[in-house]
Amino acid sequence: MADAFDPRSVAELLKEYWAPRVVGEVDEAYVKVAKILGTLGWHTHDDEDELFMVLRGQMQIELPERTIALNEGEVFVVPKGQPHNPVAEKECLILLIERKSTRHTGEIVQSNTRTIEEQLKQE
Amino acid sequence: MADAFDPRSVAELLKEYWAPRVVGEVDEAYVKVAKILGTLGWHTHDDEDELFMVLRGQMQIELPERTIALNEGEVFVVPKGQPHNPVAEKECLILLIERKSTRHTGEIVQSNTRTIEEQLKQE
Repeated sequence: MADAFDPRSVAELLKEYWAPRVVGEVDEAYVKVAKILGTLGWHTHDDEDELFMVLRGQMQIELPERTIALNEGEVFVVPKGQPHNPVAEKECLILLIERKSTRHTGEIVQSNTRTIEEQLKQE
Repeated sequence: MADAFDPRSVAELLKEYWAPRVVGEVDEAYVKVAKILGTLGWHTHDDEDELFMVLRGQMQIELPERTIALNEGEVFVVPKGQPHNPVAEKECLILLIERKSTRHTGEIVQSNTRTIEEQLKQE
């Protein structure tokens, strides 16, 4: 059985932006952390919701009709089928909860897209 | 679509200890917050994992062979089938992620057991 962990401590050691790391699992879902800066790019997860929680800093989640601003400690769940674009003006640490089948940038594959194998890798 | 929220702000308004409140959902799972003090009592979720995250304060999760100490910001996932007993010596705010089918105190029904309908209730 895994031990307790501080997701901030794992996230701050990440060397790449927008490269989520799996830190745990809860039934159908992975718990991930990421370090973000700039923008990931618009994408959609057709079949999975995605929970964002800001561990340190601030981020925005752009939606077609509005922008969600998230301060430290705040949570937003992007519902399945909702186009979204995560943005951080300054470096930000986040926690993600998403079903194991979720693909990083949905149907879109771009230079910063990470496979689940890459997200599971231990350094 | 729900808005962003600060789980600490919801949790600190709760009037009862050990009475989780559903604040969101991610696919198969509910996101809940709770205010805790003292002990909930030993129980097991045979079919569901349960994620604990401390939002404010400190807690312990007693297991038969050891005790997990969680400081603010730390996370622990109790695997399905694992007997556990959550304890807080001082008032503590927590976030929980658990499958919608999860029953509060497993097979055990005691005076502080809350049904899912009670956990979904808005005041």
